[in-house]
Amino acid sequence: MTTPVVPGSGTLRPLGLDEVRLTGGHWGERQAVNAANTIGHCLHWLEKVGWIDNFTRAATGAPFERAGREFSDSEVYKLAEAMAWEIGRTGDPALEARFTELAAVIGAAQEEDGYLNTMFGHPGQQPRYTELEWGHELYCYGHLLQAGVARLRCHGEDDFTRLCRRAADHVCDVFGPGGIERVCGHAVIEAALAEFARATGEPRYLEQARLFIERRGTHTLGDGGFGRAYYQDDVPVREAEVLRGHVVRALYLAAGAIDVAVDTGDEELLEAVRAQWGATVRRRTHLTGGMGSRYIDEAFGPDFALPPDRAYSESCAGVAAVMTAWRLMLATGDMGYGDFIERVAWNVLSGAAAPDGTAFFYANPLHVRTADEEPPRDSALSHQAARGQRAPWYDVSCCPTNLARTFAQFAVYLATADDSGIQLHQYAPGSIDTVVGGSRFALTVATAYPEDGTVVVRVESNQGSERTVSLRVPAWAEGATLTGPDGATRAVEAGGAATVTAVFEPGDEIRLHLPVSARWTAPDPRIDAVRGCAAVERGPVVLCAESIDLPGGADVAELTVDASAAPIERDGRVYVSAHVHDRDGDWPYGPATPDDEGKSAEVALIPFHRRATRGPASMRVWLPVD
Amino acid sequence: MTTPVVPGSGTLRPLGLDEVRLTGGHWGERQAVNAANTIGHCLHWLEKVGWIDNFTRAATGAPFERAGREFSDSEVYKLAEAMAWEIGRTGDPALEARFTELAAVIGAAQEEDGYLNTMFGHPGQQPRYTELEWGHELYCYGHLLQAGVARLRCHGEDDFTRLCRRAADHVCDVFGPGGIERVCGHAVIEAALAEFARATGEPRYLEQARLFIERRGTHTLGDGGFGRAYYQDDVPVREAEVLRGHVVRALYLAAGAIDVAVDTGDEELLEAVRAQWGATVRRRTHLTGGMGSRYIDEAFGPDFALPPDRAYSESCAGVAAVMTAWRLMLATGDMGYGDFIERVAWNVLSGAAAPDGTAFFYANPLHVRTADEEPPRDSALSHQAARGQRAPWYDVSCCPTNLARTFAQFAVYLATADDSGIQLHQYAPGSIDTVVGGSRFALTVATAYPEDGTVVVRVESNQGSERTVSLRVPAWAEGATLTGPDGATRAVEAGGAATVTAVFEPGDEIRLHLPVSARWTAPDPRIDAVRGCAAVERGPVVLCAESIDLPGGADVAELTVDASAAPIERDGRVYVSAHVHDRDGDWPYGPATPDDEGKSAEVALIPFHRRATRGPASMRVWLPVD
Repeated sequence: MTTPVVPGSGTLRPLGLDEVRLTGGHWGERQAVNAANTIGHCLHWLEKVGWIDNFTRAATGAPFERAGREFSDSEVYKLAEAMAWEIGRTGDPALEARFTELAAVIGAAQEEDGYLNTMFGHPGQQPRYTELEWGHELYCYGHLLQAGVARLRCHGEDDFTRLCRRAADHVCDVFGPGGIERVCGHAVIEAALAEFARATGEPRYLEQARLFIERRGTHTLGDGGFGRAYYQDDVPVREAEVLRGHVVRALYLAAGAIDVAVDTGDEELLEAVRAQWGATVRRRTHLTGGMGSRYIDEAFGPDFALPPDRAYSESCAGVAAVMTAWRLMLATGDMGYGDFIERVAWNVLSGAAAPDGTAFFYANPLHVRTADEEPPRDSALSHQAARGQRAPWYDVSCCPTNLARTFAQFAVYLATADDSGIQLHQYAPGSIDTVVGGSRFALTVATAYPEDGTVVVRVESNQGSERTVSLRVPAWAEGATLTGPDGATRAVEAGGAATVTAVFEPGDEIRLHLPVSARWTAPDPRIDAVRGCAAVERGPVVLCAESIDLPGGADVAELTVDASAAPIERDGRVYVSAHVHDRDGDWPYGPATPDDEGKSAEVALIPFHRRATRGPASMRVWLPVD
Repeated sequence: MTTPVVPGSGTLRPLGLDEVRLTGGHWGERQAVNAANTIGHCLHWLEKVGWIDNFTRAATGAPFERAGREFSDSEVYKLAEAMAWEIGRTGDPALEARFTELAAVIGAAQEEDGYLNTMFGHPGQQPRYTELEWGHELYCYGHLLQAGVARLRCHGEDDFTRLCRRAADHVCDVFGPGGIERVCGHAVIEAALAEFARATGEPRYLEQARLFIERRGTHTLGDGGFGRAYYQDDVPVREAEVLRGHVVRALYLAAGAIDVAVDTGDEELLEAVRAQWGATVRRRTHLTGGMGSRYIDEAFGPDFALPPDRAYSESCAGVAAVMTAWRLMLATGDMGYGDFIERVAWNVLSGAAAPDGTAFFYANPLHVRTADEEPPRDSALSHQAARGQRAPWYDVSCCPTNLARTFAQFAVYLATADDSGIQLHQYAPGSIDTVVGGSRFALTVATAYPEDGTVVVRVESNQGSERTVSLRVPAWAEGATLTGPDGATRAVEAGGAATVTAVFEPGDEIRLHLPVSARWTAPDPRIDAVRGCAAVERGPVVLCAESIDLPGGADVAELTVDASAAPIERDGRVYVSAHVHDRDGDWPYGPATPDDEGKSAEVALIPFHRRATRGPASMRVWLPVD
C-alpha cells in the first residue's frame, strides 16, 4: 500500500496514494510545486554542499574531508524518500532514473556487514558507535529505512530496498540483546524499524524497535550537555507525562512508541503516549500547532512558556507532529486528531516553504520584530539565525527534505476507511477510490475550502450496499450544517464527526457547510507571553499582521486592535479595527499611565502561511488589544 | 589612587578605597562576605578545575592536556584583581601572601616576548593569534591588565605589575600599526589598556586602546557563527545607535570607548556611546537593570524584546553595566547614572551571589517557572542550564570572579568629589574622607536605607570654607525632602541632585528623606512579554513573588494581583491583594471568556535579590493583573 503508515492493528485503515488523489486547490498546488521545484532544488543543494559526494568519497576507502554535519546523510535519505513517494504518485520516469542513480551512490558506501554512514569508521574518522549521544548513526539508518519503506510500497524490492534490509539486519545484529544495549541521541530508528517490519513482514525489526523504546529513559546515554531530557533519556517512555526536550526527537520517539504499542498490543504504552500528546497540546503548543519554545536546544519549554517571538516551532517539528497525530488517529479512530493535523498543515508546513518551493523556514515564530531582507538565494543560512525570511538552504538543513517527503505523501492524510465506509479528515479537491467491505466505494470532493466553507462530497461508485461517510467537523466550527443526499439539512456538532449512512448511488451528494468566517481567538491566561493579545483565525487558518499593510510605514510593535469589533471580510480579505501608536520615553517602567490613544486604522491581515512573501516586514499573529 | 577608573579628564573625580569606606549595612555585609568567603571559594574552585594549574603546566614547555574553556585564564586574572582590591582595602597579609603566590604561578607561564596564554602556542596547541574570533587571547590580557591596574594602585610596582607591563608591550608590538591590524572577538582589552596607560603613565597603551576602538566595526573579524553584531564588529563604534550583540562584549567595549574618548578628548565618540547607552536603557533593559534577552548568544534582543522568563541578564552584564554607567557619570557629571548603578547593584549583582557568597547565578531571569532543587555544591553547572537556584561554579565561570572583584571595590561607587565638594551616589553606612580644593573634607553617612528612607550625612571635618554636598535623588523618589544643617526642610525634585552649600562645621547634619514605600510599576506597552502585568518596587529594590509564599502550594503561574490596591507594608514585609486560580482546558486558545475568579489571598513579596534562598520555588517579578 503506497502510504507511509500501515499499522498491524487499529481502528482506521490508511489509504494509499493510488486510492486518494489531490486534484487541485491549495494542497494540489503544494504537491505540484513540490514535484516541479522542491525535489530538484534539494537535489541541487545536496550536490552543491557535498553531502551526496560524501557517499562517493566514503566508498573509495581512502581518507576524505567530509562535508556537512554528523547527520547530513539523513538529508540524502529523506530526499530519496520524497522521490520514492513522488514516483509512487506519478510514476515519473525521469525521477525514477534519478532515484536509481542516487540509490547507487548510497549503496556504494555500504560496508560488507551492512554498516552505512559517511561520518564514522572510515580512515581518519572516529570509530563506529562511539558517540551515540551526538553521532546520529541510528538516526541516519532511520531515515534510510523510511526511504526503504516508501520504495518497497511504491515500487517493490530492488537494490535500494535490499541495501536497506542489510542495514536493518546490521542494526539488529549490533544493537540487539547482548550487543550495544543503548539508544541513539536522536530518535527515529524506532518508527522506521517498526514500519520496515510492516513493509517487509520481518518481525525481527519490530522487536528491535521495541527494544529501543524500552531502553529509552534508562540512562543509556550520558548527560550530553543539555541534560538527558533533551533526548528523552530522562524517564522511560511509558512513565513520562508530557513531551519534553528536543521537540523533533520527542515527536519521532512518540511516533515510534505508538507503532510498537499498536503492533505488539501494548495498550499501556499507547495510552501513555496518547496522554503525553494530550498534555503537550494542552500546555506546550503554539496557536499554529507549532511546537518548541527554545532556540538554544530546539526544545519544549515548561508548561505555557510559549513566546511568539522566540517560538521555535521548527518545520520538522510540524512534520513530526503530523506523524504522531496521524498514528494516534489510526490507532484510536478519534477524528479530532485531524483538527491538529489541519492546523499544523496550514500554519506550519505550508508556510514553511516559499510559494515556489525553493526557500524554507527552519523556525516558524509567530512574531518577527525586524523587517529582514530575504537572504541570498545562493548561500546557506545558519539554522538558528532566526530571520523573518525564508532561505534556500541551511547549515543544518533537515527541513527542506522533510517538507518534500511530507508534501509528496500529503494526499494520504485526506481520508481513511474502515469496514463500513470512508472517513474524510482534510478537505481539498480530490478523489477517493477504495474498497470497503470487499467492494468498491469511490467519492470525489469539490471545495474551495477554506476560502469557502462548503465541501461537496459526491459518490462516484458504490458497489456495496449501505455505507457510512464520516466528515470531520472542526472544534472551531460552531454552527456547521450537513445536507444529506436526501436534501435534508441538519446542524452538526463542532469537534467531532458528522456521519451519513445510506445505500449511496452514484451522483449522490453530501454537503458540509463549515462557518469559516474570521473570528477572534484569545489565549489561555497562563500563557504569559501573549497576555492582553488576541489573534484572528479564519477556518483552520491563523492570520497575521505584516508591517507592509500598516499605514505610514508603522511597525507592528506600534499596533493595538479593538477585539470587541468582529473582523470584517471584504473582497476576500480580512480587516480589523486598530490603532497605530507613536510612543516615547526614557525608562520603560513607571507608574501605570493610560496608553496614548493612537491613530485609528483599519488593518488588513493575511494568512500566516503567506507571510514573508512580499518583501521585508515585521509580523505578528498575536495582536495587543487596545 | 585605589580605585578602578581614573579618567584623564572629566567632571567628577573618583575616590579611592582609602577615601570611601563602607561601615556596615547591606553593602558592608556583601563586602565582608566577599572577603571572608567568595575569594577563597573562587581560589578553591580554580584549583579544583585545573585552571590555575594550566599556568604551571604551560610553563614546563612540554605538551599538556589543558583544562577549561579558551577564556579560563581570565578567571584567574579576575580573581587576582579581586584579591588586589581587597588587599588595598584591608592590607590583609595572608591575602597578600596568596596573591604573591598566584602571581608567581601566572608569571612563570609568560614567554620571553611577553606572550601569556595557556591555550595557544604551546606544543600541540594552535598557534598564537590564529583564532581572534573565539580565541579570547586579547580578552585574557585585558583581565590581566585590570588586575595589574589594581595592583599598581593598591600596592605599587612589583613582579606582577612588571609582567603585566611586558604583556601590554607585547600587545602593542603585535597589534600596533603594521602588525595584526585586527581586534579580539571579546572586548575588554580596550578599557584595560586605557586604564593601564593611566596607571603607568605610558601613552602607548592608550594609543593601542584607541586603535582597537577604531578598528572595531570594520570587519576585521569573520562572521563567527552568530554574525558580526555578536562581537560588535558590524558597525564602527562611533556610528552605532544602540548596544547590540553579546551583552558583556558590548558593555566592555562601551566602557573602553568612553575611556578612549575621555583621554583623547574625542567628544564625538563620547556622545556616540552616551546615546547608545541611552537607547539601550530605554528599549533593551529589564526592570532589574539586567541586560540580555537571549540564551543562545547571550545577547541583546531587538527593541522591547524583554522576556522575564528567558531574560538572560547575565551577572557579568551587571558588572559591565556598572563599569559603563560609572564612566559616563564621571565624564558627564550626570548623577542620574547613579540611579542605574543602584538598580543593577541591588537587583542584579547583590542577588547573583548567595548570602554566604559561595554560590552564584549566571543568568538572572525575572521569572522562574519551575521549582528547581539547589544544584550540588560540589560540581560545576552548565552556564546555560537556566536553573532557578545558584550553583557553586559553572563550566563557563566568568560570574563568580567578576562579582568578587566588583564587591571588593564597591565602596568607590558611593561618592565622588570635585573642586567644590562631594557627591553622594549610593546610600549606605560609610565614611568619606578626602581632599576638596586642597583641604580635607570628611563626612559620615548613617542610614538603614533602603529599608528606611532616611539618610543622615554628618560633617566630620571641614578644613576648607564653603563646600557643596550633592545627594542623588532617585527618579522614583517623588516627595523626597531634604533637611539642611540649619534645620530647614524643603522638597527636592526626583531624578536629579539635591545640593547643600554651606561653610560646614563638624557635627553639621544633612538629612535626606526618600519615600521608599512599596509602589506598583507598569511596563511600557511595547514590552510584549509583560503586557497586562505589574511589578512592585520598594525604593531601588525590585520585589518578587515566590511560590513558597502562596497558599495551598500554588504555583506563581496561578497568581493574579489587584494592582489598583496599593501594596501593604506590615512588620517589614510587603503584601499585595491577589487571586489564586485553578484552571483547566484541552486546547489553550478559543473565544474570549472571562478568567475564573480564583481564591482571594494576600500574598507576601520578597526582594528579588533574596530570591531562591529558602528552597525550591517558582518565582516571578511581573505579576499578571486580575
